[in-house]
Amino acid sequence: MNLERFQDDTRRRLEQHLNGLMSHAPSPRLREAMRYSLLGGGKRLRPLLVRATAHSLGVTGDTWLHPAAALEMIHAYSLIHDDLPAMDNDDLRRGQPTNHRAFDEATAILAGDALQSLAFEHLTDTPDLTDSARLSMVRILAHHAGQAGMVGGQMLDLQAEGQDLNQTDLAAIHRLKTGALIESALKLGALCAHSVDDNTLGYLATFGQALGLAFQITDDILDVTTDTAILGKPQGSDAARDKSTYVRLLGLDEARVEARRQIDCAKSALNTLALDKNSPLHRLADYVLERDH
Amino acid sequence: MNLERFQDDTRRRLEQHLNGLMSHAPSPRLREAMRYSLLGGGKRLRPLLVRATAHSLGVTGDTWLHPAAALEMIHAYSLIHDDLPAMDNDDLRRGQPTNHRAFDEATAILAGDALQSLAFEHLTDTPDLTDSARLSMVRILAHHAGQAGMVGGQMLDLQAEGQDLNQTDLAAIHRLKTGALIESALKLGALCAHSVDDNTLGYLATFGQALGLAFQITDDILDVTTDTAILGKPQGSDAARDKSTYVRLLGLDEARVEARRQIDCAKSALNTLALDKNSPLHRLADYVLERDH
Repeated sequence: MNLERFQDDTRRRLEQHLNGLMSHAPSPRLREAMRYSLLGGGKRLRPLLVRATAHSLGVTGDTWLHPAAALEMIHAYSLIHDDLPAMDNDDLRRGQPTNHRAFDEATAILAGDALQSLAFEHLTDTPDLTDSARLSMVRILAHHAGQAGMVGGQMLDLQAEGQDLNQTDLAAIHRLKTGALIESALKLGALCAHSVDDNTLGYLATFGQALGLAFQITDDILDVTTDTAILGKPQGSDAARDKSTYVRLLGLDEARVEARRQIDCAKSALNTLALDKNSPLHRLADYVLERDH
Repeated sequence: MNLERFQDDTRRRLEQHLNGLMSHAPSPRLREAMRYSLLGGGKRLRPLLVRATAHSLGVTGDTWLHPAAALEMIHAYSLIHDDLPAMDNDDLRRGQPTNHRAFDEATAILAGDALQSLAFEHLTDTPDLTDSARLSMVRILAHHAGQAGMVGGQMLDLQAEGQDLNQTDLAAIHRLKTGALIESALKLGALCAHSVDDNTLGYLATFGQALGLAFQITDDILDVTTDTAILGKPQGSDAARDKSTYVRLLGLDEARVEARRQIDCAKSALNTLALDKNSPLHRLADYVLERDH
């Protein structure tokens, strides 16, 4: 399967899976707000990474769907909360009104909260695994989503607004804000295999961190080079918010060099593992560098 | 141990336990905001219920501390988010500025988010249990905290503002908003015992639901009968917000009768279980009815 077909197939199956959730809803409005952000498109990078990792380690079944869905729930909740007026105050996301614009602020806060709970509940039902593996997935995701991971990074990012950061500080923020969940995707994908050693997990984490940083740098580049219509959010919104970005810190050319450097670093971690050179993980690394939105 | 000593001892040990958490904090400000709400007092009803349940089923160790702490994290996060301007817009909680008043809105949103992640991470480390029991705890807490439980109830509560509810609708809201976490406390306490049958879990859930409803009714009563200084939040705030309450629906006397009826129902569920009549669960039921703040 080429990468494009792998991506399309993963998106289609993930969305089918997400669509079947939440049959019982005390508040239909809350369910609609959760579904709005969960099923409103997106690149589905984290699910792709979960499936590609499981695939690369020889897992052929559908075990990847549960951790992939859980990661998307955490990702969706974090976007809903990040877009709130008290945070980034964004009106557009993926070309559509943000959650609090389509519903209201209180509903958006609660939809995010409920998506986070659902992520952990959903992980506990992952099929074809031991309870110990399921519990490891919960532990990894909770750790990387929380104050020592994604939320910690978001907080540092807010605290850094209006400040001139150096490259080390900027990387440290993104390692948490974006990198932590991407690292989780790799680890949860690996846990779909019945046995995975610490060495493999370690190299996958290194791959994930470098990939996450490259993803963030390309995000910063796209923010200044891509039209609002393609981006699905206002062009130049980072600069408008006086945010430290790789482009502001390094300039456009050097930022491109740095993204390439991170992808090389990611690939060299992959090469240490004895994976097929055509594994989707290799091709996803190229995709992160070459994407146009 | 009499109830007062049991409560004091539980509070002291829980707070000692909570105090030792979060040694690694990328953002000290985020950690402070989390600690502010987690360690800022409160009745610690859910931890008391976890420990009392474990105790009543013959568990003597410290296993209760992890699920008790996890429940307090979920409870604390829900209070932080409920107090936000877009939700209940409260300035005072337990006689202190609410989290977004002491810090700011963005920090309060993130502190709540991170407390929810930490709750699940912390549960995965509960000592002296099998991974299957730990996983059951995660599943139960995530289910009762989310859209089918606490958050769903909070959403229904917001949607009901300004409407005249009947008693059935009001009970349905509180069964989710308050009852779901209290039911979790009972079930998590029971899971501290190495073997607990479904029958016992069912009666404990019935006890928890009735106790939760009684707790909510007494909350509504205290809102109109108790001074702001004792309550730690403005007296009459429910009426000011045009909320449906038991007092508004039934009047003060009939609300008291209904609270007593729920406690009788709770105790009769307990009596079905072969527990010591002096078990702290019996005494906690009386406490819920007789508390003055």
